[in-house]
Amino acid sequence: MPKPVILDCDPGHDDVFAIWLAAGDPEIDLRAITTVGGNGLLSHTTYNARVVTGLAGITGVPIAPGAAGPLVRVLTPAESIHGANALGGPELPEPAVDEDPRTAVELIRDVLDAAGEPVTIVATGPLTNIALFVRAHPERLPLVREVVWMGGSTGRGNITPYAEFNAWTDPEAVAVVLGSGLPFTMIGLNVTHQVLVTPGVVARIGAAGTRTAAFGVELLTFFNSTYERDQGMPAGPLHDPVAMALVARPELLTTVETRIDVELHGTETAGATSVDLLGKLGREPNARVATGVDVEGFWQLLEAAVRTLS
Amino acid sequence: MPKPVILDCDPGHDDVFAIWLAAGDPEIDLRAITTVGGNGLLSHTTYNARVVTGLAGITGVPIAPGAAGPLVRVLTPAESIHGANALGGPELPEPAVDEDPRTAVELIRDVLDAAGEPVTIVATGPLTNIALFVRAHPERLPLVREVVWMGGSTGRGNITPYAEFNAWTDPEAVAVVLGSGLPFTMIGLNVTHQVLVTPGVVARIGAAGTRTAAFGVELLTFFNSTYERDQGMPAGPLHDPVAMALVARPELLTTVETRIDVELHGTETAGATSVDLLGKLGREPNARVATGVDVEGFWQLLEAAVRTLS
Amino acid sequence: MPKPVILDCDPGHDDVFAIWLAAGDPEIDLRAITTVGGNGLLSHTTYNARVVTGLAGITGVPIAPGAAGPLVRVLTPAESIHGANALGGPELPEPAVDEDPRTAVELIRDVLDAAGEPVTIVATGPLTNIALFVRAHPERLPLVREVVWMGGSTGRGNITPYAEFNAWTDPEAVAVVLGSGLPFTMIGLNVTHQVLVTPGVVARIGAAGTRTAAFGVELLTFFNSTYERDQGMPAGPLHDPVAMALVARPELLTTVETRIDVELHGTETAGATSVDLLGKLGREPNARVATGVDVEGFWQLLEAAVRTLS
Amino acid sequence: MPKPVILDCDPGHDDVFAIWLAAGDPEIDLRAITTVGGNGLLSHTTYNARVVTGLAGITGVPIAPGAAGPLVRVLTPAESIHGANALGGPELPEPAVDEDPRTAVELIRDVLDAAGEPVTIVATGPLTNIALFVRAHPERLPLVREVVWMGGSTGRGNITPYAEFNAWTDPEAVAVVLGSGLPFTMIGLNVTHQVLVTPGVVARIGAAGTRTAAFGVELLTFFNSTYERDQGMPAGPLHDPVAMALVARPELLTTVETRIDVELHGTETAGATSVDLLGKLGREPNARVATGVDVEGFWQLLEAAVRTLS
Repeated sequence: MPKPVILDCDPGHDDVFAIWLAAGDPEIDLRAITTVGGNGLLSHTTYNARVVTGLAGITGVPIAPGAAGPLVRVLTPAESIHGANALGGPELPEPAVDEDPRTAVELIRDVLDAAGEPVTIVATGPLTNIALFVRAHPERLPLVREVVWMGGSTGRGNITPYAEFNAWTDPEAVAVVLGSGLPFTMIGLNVTHQVLVTPGVVARIGAAGTRTAAFGVELLTFFNSTYERDQGMPAGPLHDPVAMALVARPELLTTVETRIDVELHGTETAGATSVDLLGKLGREPNARVATGVDVEGFWQLLEAAVRTLS
Repeated sequence: MPKPVILDCDPGHDDVFAIWLAAGDPEIDLRAITTVGGNGLLSHTTYNARVVTGLAGITGVPIAPGAAGPLVRVLTPAESIHGANALGGPELPEPAVDEDPRTAVELIRDVLDAAGEPVTIVATGPLTNIALFVRAHPERLPLVREVVWMGGSTGRGNITPYAEFNAWTDPEAVAVVLGSGLPFTMIGLNVTHQVLVTPGVVARIGAAGTRTAAFGVELLTFFNSTYERDQGMPAGPLHDPVAMALVARPELLTTVETRIDVELHGTETAGATSVDLLGKLGREPNARVATGVDVEGFWQLLEAAVRTLS
Repeated sequence: MPKPVILDCDPGHDDVFAIWLAAGDPEIDLRAITTVGGNGLLSHTTYNARVVTGLAGITGVPIAPGAAGPLVRVLTPAESIHGANALGGPELPEPAVDEDPRTAVELIRDVLDAAGEPVTIVATGPLTNIALFVRAHPERLPLVREVVWMGGSTGRGNITPYAEFNAWTDPEAVAVVLGSGLPFTMIGLNVTHQVLVTPGVVARIGAAGTRTAAFGVELLTFFNSTYERDQGMPAGPLHDPVAMALVARPELLTTVETRIDVELHGTETAGATSVDLLGKLGREPNARVATGVDVEGFWQLLEAAVRTLS
Repeated sequence: MPKPVILDCDPGHDDVFAIWLAAGDPEIDLRAITTVGGNGLLSHTTYNARVVTGLAGITGVPIAPGAAGPLVRVLTPAESIHGANALGGPELPEPAVDEDPRTAVELIRDVLDAAGEPVTIVATGPLTNIALFVRAHPERLPLVREVVWMGGSTGRGNITPYAEFNAWTDPEAVAVVLGSGLPFTMIGLNVTHQVLVTPGVVARIGAAGTRTAAFGVELLTFFNSTYERDQGMPAGPLHDPVAMALVARPELLTTVETRIDVELHGTETAGATSVDLLGKLGREPNARVATGVDVEGFWQLLEAAVRTLS
């Protein structure tokens, strides 16, 4: 039985591969896509979600826009990585998929109510929508199986020395979700920086020979060029689909039960995810944190999923 | 033409008088009551709103519960002032009014959509519901005429040396509402501490001779006893209806256009509302702040409103 | 028996009157003056101390420069109040008094060692020197009778809405001194804003007819002009000598034992002195805080002291 | 020409090896040892410095105690690593070396004044003494060649997820030294965690066959046992002598010019050293940061130095 999943994302190059993995993998039953301002403005991330689903022939998955910006802070899109429209590189075709009339929170609510079983939320952007859902519908938290989030880090960050972009964009949302009691798994930079888009990876994705694959190659090529310039990484890390991979094939990731606290008040470290791997703080564990990934297994999974798309 | 008003509150003794003022004053057209966790737990504040409307014969005003706790922080109800059920003192009759099936944010949205003119939101508790509305429905902010809030202070606080209870409970919500661009007026302790429930005031309210007045006298008697013990004020300050008075009779209050910034990060001063009355910070004004009140005019207004109720 | 006193100051117009009060009052035995960067750069405040002692015929009081800036933060002199040289207004004569070769901390140490009795430190600037003394010579804290500080506020501030200038300049130093266990008295804006340099006050000071008095009138005239422009107070508050008055005539001030915590981490309120007058925080008292002053008694004291000078 | 060095330390097992390396290496001319509260109370760290110099036959190096605790915060000694007396394991002989009558700051001043050439300060504990020196004697900063500090991290910490113990103990001191303009090199956990006390290392140190070597083996054995229990590292990292190695043999370490900012205000991350290796913050470099070490070269250097001692 495939697992019902809602994907909350801010496409963004790597989000696209999370969408395609969710749509193409037999273990995932993608029920909805919700979008958030993050890598780009909400108008762009929503548009991009519509473009890349339509392009890949993904139908029947409602796409609803959520929060334009963080819970409390001000959005600074990641233009140096993703470009001005959050999906730099390829020419974007007209989206073949419409926007759902509901808000992200309403769509999440409706999907949960209709599912008849707990639903997994995979979040690959700032956690704003999930935090707003938690505050709007505390009565429905039991309908969520878990939240799997690409964000944070157990070590260094990428937007400041200690903060990862999604966590830095909306640290208060991280605190809300961590404090909600929802089962929570964090896939941070410590793992995603192992999943590097080498030339071999680009070639494997491209080898599918489909329209989707060709578009994907354009995305990866642009992504690698900005990662090299901005982060000194000529093979960029394909963060977001790793979170989806945890749901599709849990055995691909190693995780530990531990404690995450997010820094809300620092002047240099706001958004740092302080992960107490040594258990020195004496606090109760509140999350699973990924510490390792089967890189080759991941690429096989992604490649296979992309091959199912048009 | 009476002004359409939504009252967001956490009854709470003084909130009750804000409800009664709104319902009894000819200048106010009370369209909805939304409740929030603050002075007491959400279950209590919602129940109390239902009790005191029914008791006073107020009908046709939907009452919807909102957020159980603050946007990011954890709720600590003000039991030392308001008692364990947030409305200590009188025996509470069974509520004659039902809860609306909508959430606070949904009710606010529907009232705004139906009004055909901008609606004033008077908030007399933590600003959590208003912040959630701002994030859920940014497209509807033009339908709000203004937010008038009882909270904050230009000087000392009441829950910590520099923070007033509503601001301290949810400072992030204050930041969200201040940052939303909604016209915003703050009625803080600097003004409400002039509006003291002296024995003469209690007598005037009681003189109406109604069921509502008798219940009100019990509330004020309890309120004064806790204020004396907790704050050293034998005549407690009746904060919340002053915000409603600003809408009913703007001429009763003196205000200035100035700058408010709320402290989100201090260890001693979180929730302090830093009001730049001298304009020393060089920032743009973002609010009106009340600096004076016609105390006798206020009591006349309140007394008259209470007399209209059953 | 006059009380031995070390005055740590940053002259500054009002500091000058603290010097003159200390030198001219029979209850004070002024043993040393130490200077700190605050109202002006250290070079200016040290120079000014030398000018105004020499001008007033004060001899035998060593003057040693201390810290150029705060313990941790960066100095921003109060030029809008005190002018570019920290003593705007009068033409400054050449100083007749030399600088002591010792540092402020060394001079404080030597005075304490030589006194044979506990010595009171009156501080009228940022507490940097006192904090450095506490850290350099913890073994000598028993030689200090108490620290009496002009700084902080129980209510509003003057440099930001909630911070007074001396506290705001070096909040970490306030924390160090408060944490040292030294008996500590704070004379804050809540009291000094009652001590206003009205035209009558200027006339009384001037009536002494001395060189010192004439110079003092020039200082007060400049001070009032900047206070009117910067703070909207045409009669400026003569803060600093009020701290000296507490030592000279304790009966002129009302004080309470209470708790002070200084905000070190806020973004809007750094340097706010959070004074728990209602005892709501449940912490041990750590200071005396002035809550009232006999204004007329203070001016008589100051006037009498100035009349003793040349 | 050996380089004149002042060692500011808090022995502490690994500090002892920094002392021995400084005393035994021909490139270092150890002029003074100053002590600080850190790994243990000041009374212990000073006593321990006297013990391990006397035991090793190191003479003519004055030892002066400095700050008992941090600039602003409260000391929590690292007892879980170093034991109650900061030097758990061996029986400590009576110290053969006396304490200098000067304070640490006075001794640093005197050594600088007498040197006739710039002196390097190697600091292997919290930077409190160095910060106090900076504030007490800004006029003598040109006499310091550079400060080489063992502390901080470019990645994870050891006392909290993001803070290293020395930085966490006194982050304000780090800020003061960084802000002083003194040339500054940080040797953090990212490097010292490569310098692990394996059984082979213990054997090599012990092979010297001297009293010092035998004592050292007892220290290392204890150190490894606590590191295994506290940090899950059966071969503990010998942090402190790596800083001395940089002075003795600069070619053993790789460093980069970069920007360090220390977190002073976070609730989860206070004391984290935010090192902008990617230059994303657009600030001026203010330090050198070690990024690599020749581990075998380091052990050879240390072994050779220990062999010179009695």
